Amino acid sequence: MVKVIKIGGKLIEDNRTLRCLCERLPAYFPHCVVIHGGGSMAGQLSSRLGMETHMQDGRRITDRETLDVTVMAYAGLANKKIVAGLQARGVNACGLSGCDMGIVRSHKREVREIDWGFVGDIDKVNGEVLIHLLGRGVMPVLSPITFDTQGQLLNTNADSVASAVAIALSRFGETELVFCLDKPGVLLDVNDERSVIGELDRETYREYVEKGLIHSGMMPKLENAFKTLEAGVGLVRLTHPDHLEAGTLITLKN
Amino acid sequence: MVKVIKIGGKLIEDNRTLRCLCERLPAYFPHCVVIHGGGSMAGQLSSRLGMETHMQDGRRITDRETLDVTVMAYAGLANKKIVAGLQARGVNACGLSGCDMGIVRSHKREVREIDWGFVGDIDKVNGEVLIHLLGRGVMPVLSPITFDTQGQLLNTNADSVASAVAIALSRFGETELVFCLDKPGVLLDVNDERSVIGELDRETYREYVEKGLIHSGMMPKLENAFKTLEAGVGLVRLTHPDHLEAGTLITLKN
Repeated sequence: MVKVIKIGGKLIEDNRTLRCLCERLPAYFPHCVVIHGGGSMAGQLSSRLGMETHMQDGRRITDRETLDVTVMAYAGLANKKIVAGLQARGVNACGLSGCDMGIVRSHKREVREIDWGFVGDIDKVNGEVLIHLLGRGVMPVLSPITFDTQGQLLNTNADSVASAVAIALSRFGETELVFCLDKPGVLLDVNDERSVIGELDRETYREYVEKGLIHSGMMPKLENAFKTLEAGVGLVRLTHPDHLEAGTLITLKN
Repeated sequence: MVKVIKIGGKLIEDNRTLRCLCERLPAYFPHCVVIHGGGSMAGQLSSRLGMETHMQDGRRITDRETLDVTVMAYAGLANKKIVAGLQARGVNACGLSGCDMGIVRSHKREVREIDWGFVGDIDKVNGEVLIHLLGRGVMPVLSPITFDTQGQLLNTNADSVASAVAIALSRFGETELVFCLDKPGVLLDVNDERSVIGELDRETYREYVEKGLIHSGMMPKLENAFKTLEAGVGLVRLTHPDHLEAGTLITLKN
């Protein structure tokens, strides 16, 4: 069983969570691939540089300068901090971005109504490289910076990278995709951390959405989770990094 | 024959040179390891962030904030730009820093008269990992960000990393270390680019230094070159990246 663990930027910047994660991951070692964001590091750097942030529908547009900042924050600082933390705990981690060994190739998102800038949509994941690393006892730690055939670096949604990686790895064997949240799972009542939904199938999900019980920010994550299961990944879980075996299990069965 | 090619920050930021290098390196592929700096990227970012630069004897002191900037510029932007450029030219490059797979472990430089901050002096290079990658047709592109046993990232001199890597690889077979310069080699007359010294041994070097013909900025590079040869590396060359087979060959023979 290979676990693909996606951890967001905010969680990484919380030193306690990062330390806990570094202590916990060795338990899954070497059958674990980490995908991370670095969101607020990039945002903080942009604002300190006095860069204007261009948003559209709540999502940032990646102009050339924003791309450079994103590459620095994600592929540089966030990635190497996680790797050094793991190495100090005896885990032979290897920090990589999508361009390294051609792991995640993408293309620049087509301009339709909105020009998203240097944002990549994934074309192909090289699962063989990751499987080879895992087989050698190496834990890949992947930033969501991808590249196109022209050598252009592209900023890619970390959840999408995590799903694409899990799908690619599921061709080699059983795979679980874990999305780490700052909550213990998907909550029925957003104000009650004890209201974790233990298991969620598509029909129940639709019911909860209709009843307005599932928060709109959670919907893209859950839609993505169902698609990932349909593409062949055995298990998708949403949980807090302190409880990687708990949280909400997403299932296809009705 | 494995070539270890060290290219400095300034050369990388010159898009023409970077493009030329990406076009030239495939000729050596896959028997090539690239070590790069990223100096002025880090400097530009620091000054844009309004950070004070603390210098001592012409060398920068790496405080915590400077370390973060260095990791972002070297391990992030510089590293991934080179890798994506190589991938676009069909070279299966892999960007790495010293912490990745424990390739270069170091310790924080002891505080004596000067506290250099988060600067690492190299303890150990894992040559096996690099040889394994080369054997699989992968070209390692290494940033000089190293780490200690506590998981602290450390800024390390890129020339020192290049030498240590070449020495480690020389245990596996013939190795050449190439330092790329913005000049065609070591010049007898700093104002005449045609005055390249074709071959330079230690005795001649001492003579040139006594006569004031060798520039003080070149001296640490040449001292380092002689030490690298004494440690078992077959060839050390100083040249412009446009002419990787020319330039100045450093030799031990008198």
